[in-house]
Amino acid sequence: MTVVALLSVAPVTEQSMADEVAKAVEALEEYDVGYETNPMGTVIEADSTDELFAAAQAAHEAVDGDRVSTVLKIDDKRTRDAAASEKVEAVEEALGRPASSDR
Amino acid sequence: MTVVALLSVAPVTEQSMADEVAKAVEALEEYDVGYETNPMGTVIEADSTDELFAAAQAAHEAVDGDRVSTVLKIDDKRTRDAAASEKVEAVEEALGRPASSDR
Amino acid sequence: MTVVALLSVAPVTEQSMADEVAKAVEALEEYDVGYETNPMGTVIEADSTDELFAAAQAAHEAVDGDRVSTVLKIDDKRTRDAAASEKVEAVEEALGRPASSDR
Amino acid sequence: MTVVALLSVAPVTEQSMADEVAKAVEALEEYDVGYETNPMGTVIEADSTDELFAAAQAAHEAVDGDRVSTVLKIDDKRTRDAAASEKVEAVEEALGRPASSDR
Repeated sequence: MTVVALLSVAPVTEQSMADEVAKAVEALEEYDVGYETNPMGTVIEADSTDELFAAAQAAHEAVDGDRVSTVLKIDDKRTRDAAASEKVEAVEEALGRPASSDR
Repeated sequence: MTVVALLSVAPVTEQSMADEVAKAVEALEEYDVGYETNPMGTVIEADSTDELFAAAQAAHEAVDGDRVSTVLKIDDKRTRDAAASEKVEAVEEALGRPASSDR
Repeated sequence: MTVVALLSVAPVTEQSMADEVAKAVEALEEYDVGYETNPMGTVIEADSTDELFAAAQAAHEAVDGDRVSTVLKIDDKRTRDAAASEKVEAVEEALGRPASSDR
Repeated sequence: MTVVALLSVAPVTEQSMADEVAKAVEALEEYDVGYETNPMGTVIEADSTDELFAAAQAAHEAVDGDRVSTVLKIDDKRTRDAAASEKVEAVEEALGRPASSDR
């Protein structure tokens, strides 16, 4: 199986969050997951929910702050071994073009 | 500290989801968390992120289905011991009325 | 049809958010929606997506702040007229008990 | 200002969702927004919340299905004109490397 997720971890602070978000991303390196950060979070792909939840918790804890806000959205396809990238490819095939704007 | 979260676990199925959602709720009983289900998920309150992530993973795994969609949204107030209910009470105090419609 | 959603609107600030969240809740009064605030957001129920999106946008805009973080999660059952409360009742029937902890 | 969001629209169906997700992406073309689809949703960037909410609603309605599940997560930076891409660049500068795995 492949489990794909989006993880967003952010300290609730009026300061720039980039340094803290970087700590969350760095924490993922200790786990057997693939990941890629986009402007609204980090897409994570793992072979097991154990690995996914452990990585997400580590990322959450790596961020310092009195208050930390985290969102984890999971798409757990239990009977298929589809890479995360295939989800975008299938949409682009249906669209007949890249799934992004020219803007 | 108190960590409060919203957890939604749902099998991606055209059938009724209630039986599967009930399994997710039942799974929480094995953990030291408080919880209450609302129409869009279950609010969970825990004393540690360890307990929260363990409970959320167990709820996710308790739901059967070829594809399961889960959302976990965490508000981790690390320097305060505020019960989840106090969040609503503070909003209602600011509103000067219950934070719900008459409808 | 009935569309049910969870809306969370929060200013990204180290101060207490209750006053701002109260403004978001108050904004809902101008729309033909039912709502009830829980510790992680406000469950909204509307008869149309027009009304839901208009209410959600108004709540988002009612909150002051240099940076505002909003999450809107929608469950749009287009062929059924089920009240939001029936979702919890169905889970509780499957559980055979209230869907909340004693804690 | 620039408002950045993640939008996920999915029919609750056991069939492949790619055709329906493509309709949601196509609907964005009618709005003055930038967007790019990733494996867990589409990052949208707009100059106003009006444009963002209108585009999100259109995408939600473009997807056919008896039950449609949508998540919209908004980061509204009201006092800054920062492109969505700058958020990732700031994290990568803090990391000192690309914010993605080699895997």
